Amino acid sequence: MTIRMTTLLQRTRLLFRAHICHRTAIATSVNLFQGPCSVSLRSHTCGELRPEHAGEKVALYGWVQYLRQDLFVILRDYSGLTQVLISQDDGSLKEKLGELTVESVVKVTGTVRRRPEGQENTNMPTGDIEVLAENLEVLNTCRKLPFEIKDFVKKSEALRMQYRYLDLRSTRMQQNLRLRSQLSMRMREYLCHQHGFVDVETPTLFKRTPGGAKEFLVPSREPGRFYSLPQSPQQFKQLLMVAGVDRYFQFARCYRDEGSKPDRQPEFTQVDIEMSFVEQAGVMALVEGLLQYSWPPELGGLSQPFPCITYSEAMRDYGSDKPDTRFHMKVLECVCVCMCENYLNNYYQPQMGILGILRNLKINLSVLAVRPEGTLKSPLSKHLSPSDTEGLLGETRARPGDLLLVSACSLHTVRPLLGKLRLQCAELLEARGVALRDPTAFHFLWVVDFPLFLPKEGEPGSLESAHHPFTAPVAQDAHLVYTEPLQVRGQHYDLVLNGCEVGGGSIRIHKAAEQLHVLKNILKEDVSVLSHLLEALDSGAPPHGGIALGLDRLISLMVRAPSIRDVIAFPKSFRGHDLMSQAPDYVSEEDLKPYHISVTWPPAKTEEK
Amino acid sequence: MTIRMTTLLQRTRLLFRAHICHRTAIATSVNLFQGPCSVSLRSHTCGELRPEHAGEKVALYGWVQYLRQDLFVILRDYSGLTQVLISQDDGSLKEKLGELTVESVVKVTGTVRRRPEGQENTNMPTGDIEVLAENLEVLNTCRKLPFEIKDFVKKSEALRMQYRYLDLRSTRMQQNLRLRSQLSMRMREYLCHQHGFVDVETPTLFKRTPGGAKEFLVPSREPGRFYSLPQSPQQFKQLLMVAGVDRYFQFARCYRDEGSKPDRQPEFTQVDIEMSFVEQAGVMALVEGLLQYSWPPELGGLSQPFPCITYSEAMRDYGSDKPDTRFHMKVLECVCVCMCENYLNNYYQPQMGILGILRNLKINLSVLAVRPEGTLKSPLSKHLSPSDTEGLLGETRARPGDLLLVSACSLHTVRPLLGKLRLQCAELLEARGVALRDPTAFHFLWVVDFPLFLPKEGEPGSLESAHHPFTAPVAQDAHLVYTEPLQVRGQHYDLVLNGCEVGGGSIRIHKAAEQLHVLKNILKEDVSVLSHLLEALDSGAPPHGGIALGLDRLISLMVRAPSIRDVIAFPKSFRGHDLMSQAPDYVSEEDLKPYHISVTWPPAKTEEK
Repeated sequence: MTIRMTTLLQRTRLLFRAHICHRTAIATSVNLFQGPCSVSLRSHTCGELRPEHAGEKVALYGWVQYLRQDLFVILRDYSGLTQVLISQDDGSLKEKLGELTVESVVKVTGTVRRRPEGQENTNMPTGDIEVLAENLEVLNTCRKLPFEIKDFVKKSEALRMQYRYLDLRSTRMQQNLRLRSQLSMRMREYLCHQHGFVDVETPTLFKRTPGGAKEFLVPSREPGRFYSLPQSPQQFKQLLMVAGVDRYFQFARCYRDEGSKPDRQPEFTQVDIEMSFVEQAGVMALVEGLLQYSWPPELGGLSQPFPCITYSEAMRDYGSDKPDTRFHMKVLECVCVCMCENYLNNYYQPQMGILGILRNLKINLSVLAVRPEGTLKSPLSKHLSPSDTEGLLGETRARPGDLLLVSACSLHTVRPLLGKLRLQCAELLEARGVALRDPTAFHFLWVVDFPLFLPKEGEPGSLESAHHPFTAPVAQDAHLVYTEPLQVRGQHYDLVLNGCEVGGGSIRIHKAAEQLHVLKNILKEDVSVLSHLLEALDSGAPPHGGIALGLDRLISLMVRAPSIRDVIAFPKSFRGHDLMSQAPDYVSEEDLKPYHISVTWPPAKTEEK
Repeated sequence: MTIRMTTLLQRTRLLFRAHICHRTAIATSVNLFQGPCSVSLRSHTCGELRPEHAGEKVALYGWVQYLRQDLFVILRDYSGLTQVLISQDDGSLKEKLGELTVESVVKVTGTVRRRPEGQENTNMPTGDIEVLAENLEVLNTCRKLPFEIKDFVKKSEALRMQYRYLDLRSTRMQQNLRLRSQLSMRMREYLCHQHGFVDVETPTLFKRTPGGAKEFLVPSREPGRFYSLPQSPQQFKQLLMVAGVDRYFQFARCYRDEGSKPDRQPEFTQVDIEMSFVEQAGVMALVEGLLQYSWPPELGGLSQPFPCITYSEAMRDYGSDKPDTRFHMKVLECVCVCMCENYLNNYYQPQMGILGILRNLKINLSVLAVRPEGTLKSPLSKHLSPSDTEGLLGETRARPGDLLLVSACSLHTVRPLLGKLRLQCAELLEARGVALRDPTAFHFLWVVDFPLFLPKEGEPGSLESAHHPFTAPVAQDAHLVYTEPLQVRGQHYDLVLNGCEVGGGSIRIHKAAEQLHVLKNILKEDVSVLSHLLEALDSGAPPHGGIALGLDRLISLMVRAPSIRDVIAFPKSFRGHDLMSQAPDYVSEEDLKPYHISVTWPPAKTEEK
C-alpha cells in the first residue's frame, strides 16, 4: 500500500478518469425531458393517451383496476385509466391475464389504437383509445385487500386510517393531496416572487412556554431538562423581524397537545407570515392577494377586499366571533319588548318538532310564529301587550311565515348561545331540504377590533390575553393599557371562511417597555422566561406584524371535506393515535435511561405493567 | 334579545352590509403593487435609490448604521444603505439627530437628490444620491448592544448564538438566509412544475424504530406510551408510493439525537424525494437536473452528468466513500514491494515537521522522498532491494521532489487511515500556501455499488445494513441475498460534494417476501414492528426509489460557510442548547404529571434536585 503525494504545485490539478459505472449502461434509456414521464420507465401515464397517439408504441405502468371479459385489463395510475386489450391469439398473454389480480402492479407494452366504432367510452378521458398489449409483466402481485379500491366502496374511518396507503389510492384523496401541493406552491410563488418574502425555517425543539400546558415535551439527555414542541413560531418570527429579515414566511409545522378533541390534530401546518414596517391594512391586503393568487380557478373567483366587521358587530349580529355569513338570520337586540325576565327564564317548553334540537342549548327560549294575518302564535303572546307585539314585529321586521326565537339573559351569556342556535337552525333547515347556504359559496370575512384582554375565568380581577401577549393595542386605545386595560382593543384580525376561523394575526408590540408592562403589570407573568424577547425588542425592533393561516382547515373547506383528516396524508385519530403503525407505543425502560426519565404508572394500571 | 329566522326560501340569500372598520380608514395608503415595498409603509428600500429617483419624495424605514459629522445618518435595511442628509437649518431635526443612537429604527421622509460632484461613493450602490430629510421619526431606540453590527467586528460563537437576532443582521447571514430561501424555491419549481412532483407533508410524531437509539422521544398522555421524532420520512415516502402518489417530495424536518457532535444539529432539513417506476439512473438524472436548475448563477455552471465511481473504486483510490475529488494524491496499492510487514508495523518515527500531524493517525508509516537524481531518501531505503526501489518508483510513477508515504496493514484498516492522511496532508499543504484545491470549485460525485450488508461490529457472524434495510440489491446480485449476502451490492447511491456527503438514496425493495427475508433472516429484526410496511408491500407496491439531500450541508458548502450553523436561522450549540432562550430547560413536576413520567436524577446530582 502506498500513498503518493505530489508536492509540486504544477501537478495538483485534478485529473478525472472517465468513470464507468452501472449508470452509464442504463442511462441511455432515461427520458430527460420534462413532465410526469421524465426520468421514468414509462412512456406515458395512464390518463394521457388520446386518438392522436394511435399507432404509437407505449410502455404503461399501473395498477389493475378492473379485469373484464377475460379480454381487458383496465390500468390505473394517479392520472386516470387506460383500457388494455389482450389479444386472444397470444396464449402466453392470455395465461398471464388469467392469473392477474386487481391492484397488482403491471407493465404493459403495446400499441395505441382507436377503439372500434361504437365502443368508445365517453365517461373516460382515454375512452376513445385502447392499447393492444404486446407484452404484460407483473411487477408485484396484490394480496386480498381489506377493502376494494373503488370510489363507490364505503369504508369505516378506522379501516381507512389503518390502511391509509390504500385509502390514499381513491380519486378524492389523490385530488386532495394534489390540490394541497398546488395551493402551497402558488402561495410560495406569491410570497417569494411577488412580494419579496424570505422562507426561513425555525426550530421545533424549543423552550417550554410558561403555562404552556398544550406543549408536547421532549426529554433531552441532560437530567431534568426538556425541549418543547412549540404551538407556533411566534417568538422566532418576531425575532426575525428584529434581525432585519424584513419579510418572513414559513409553512410551519406546529404542535398542540390537547388530548382528544374532535377534528384537531396534534401536529398541523400553518402558513406563517411576518412583515416589518406594515400596518393592519397591509397584512390584510397581502393575505387577500395571497388567497386570490393561489385560489384554484375551478372554485370560482374571489372578490376583494373581503368584508370586514368588528368583534362587537360580530357578537351583536351573529353571537360569534367567527360568523358564518353565508346566510342571514341575524341575532337582533330588541329594546322595546318589556317582558318579565323571570318569566322568560322559566318559560320554555319546546313544542315544535323542528326545535327539538334546541333542548341541548339549555337556554330559556320562547318561540313565536308569525301567522299569515300578522299576529303572533305563541304561548308567550298572551303576556305581550298589543304595543309590545307591534314593537317586536316592527323591530324584527318579521313577516308572515317567520319564526321568532326570543330569549333574555345577560348579553355575555345569551349572545354565544343564540349564535349556536342560529347555526343549529341552519343545519336543521338544510336537513329538511331548505337550501339556506350555497354549498359552492366561499365567504371570507375579516373580524377586527378584538378586546386585547379578557377577565380570567375563575380568577376575578385577573386578566388574560384575548389572543397572545404580543398583540399591540389599537393606536387610539394605547393610553388605556395603563388605565383601563379591559377597554383596550387589540390590533388583531381574524380571517373567517364560511364560519370557520382560518387565520389570525396582529400587529405586535415593538417596544420593550410596553411589552414589559403588559407581561408584568397586566398579565402578572414571570418575565424572566421571556427576557430574550424583551432584550430583542430593546435592540432596535422595527414595527412589525403578521398572520398565520391554518393550512389544513383552509384546504378542507376548499375541498368541502368533512374533516381535516381528508387533506392530511397520514393523520392521527381522535385519540391522537396513528392507527397504521400504532403510535404512540410502549418504550423499554432501557430506551428511557438516556433521557433520565421513568414512567409513573397510575395506580389502577400498575398490574398491567 | 331576539333571533329571527327567515323560513321562507326566497329570503335566504345573504345580504352583506358594507362594513366600515378601521381598515377602510387606512387602506387608501396601502401600496398594492408587487415588490419589496408592497403593502408596506415605506416607498423604497434602503438599497434601491439611484440618480433617476432624484427629485422624488420618499419614505424610508431602517436602522441607523452610522452617524457622521452631525450631518449624516446612514440608514440600513436588508437591501443596503442610504445616506440621509440632515439640514443644518432645521433645528428640530438637528436636535433629533443629536439624540439618535446606532441601530435605532427610524422613519425618514425627504427628497432624493444627486450628491454634490466629487462626493459620490462608488463603493455604495446608492452612492450617487442622498436623501435630504424633511422629517425624521424615531420608531424605536436601541440600547447599548453586546457587539456592534458591523461586518468587520469579530464576535465569539457563543455571543453570536446568544444574540442571534443581532448576529443575523450581518450582511453574510442575511445573504445566507436569502440564498437558502431562493435555492429552496428553485428546487420546488423544478420538482413541481417540470417533473410533476407532489409536495406531501408527513408526520413527525411517529412510532419508535426498534433500536432507534438516535430518536427523540415524546411522551403522550397515555401512561408508558411515547411518540418518536423520526430521523427521516423513509417509511412514509415508501407508503406514499404504495398509495399511488407517483412522485413525492418534501422539505422534511428530521431529528437525530446524537448528544454532542461537532457540526451536527438535533433537527435538520432534508430535501426528500421518492418516485415510482424509476431506476437508479433516473433518480440520478433528476437530481443532477435539480441542482443545475437551482444552482445560483453567481457560483458558476455545473457540468453534467456528474462523475460516478463505485464504492470499491472510492475506497481503493481515496480510502473514503466520500472522496474529495478536488485534488489528486490518490492512494495506490503496490503489489511489487515485498517488505516485511512487521518491520513496517514497528518502524514509523516521524522526522519531518510537515508530518507532525500524522502522529494522530496512529498508523505505521514510512516516509520516502524522491531525490533529484531519482533515488529514495528514507530510513526505509536501506531495507529495499534495488528492484524493490525500482518497482516502487515505477508503480507510483514518483518523480524527483515527490514524497511517498508507505504503509502496510490489512486493506480494511489501512485504506480509511490513508484516506484521512490524504485529507490531512491537503490541509497541511494548503496551510503552507500550496494551492491544492480550487476554493471556488464545486466537485459533485456519485458513489454507487455500496455493499448491501456489512459485518456487525462486535458481533461476529451478524450482519447489518450498510445504509438501511429497505435498499434493493443490484439486479445481478439479487440471488446472492439468499446465499452470500456479504457479496451483494445495493442499488444505493451517495452524492458527494467536495468530499462531503450531501445526499443518499436507493431503489427500494418493493416485494414483501424479499423485504421479509432481509429483515427476518439476514438482519434478525423483530418484523412485527414493521408489519404495516410489509403488508403495504404486499398490497400492490410499485417499483420505486428516491433520495434525500441534506439541505443544511449543501447550502453551507455552497456559501463556503465553516459550519452548518451559518445557514440555519436559529441553530443549537454543540451541546444541543439554544443559547438565546436556554432550551432545553427544567420543567416542573406538575408539568410532567399529564405525561406520567418523572425524572430519574443520576445519583451524583440528587442533592442538586
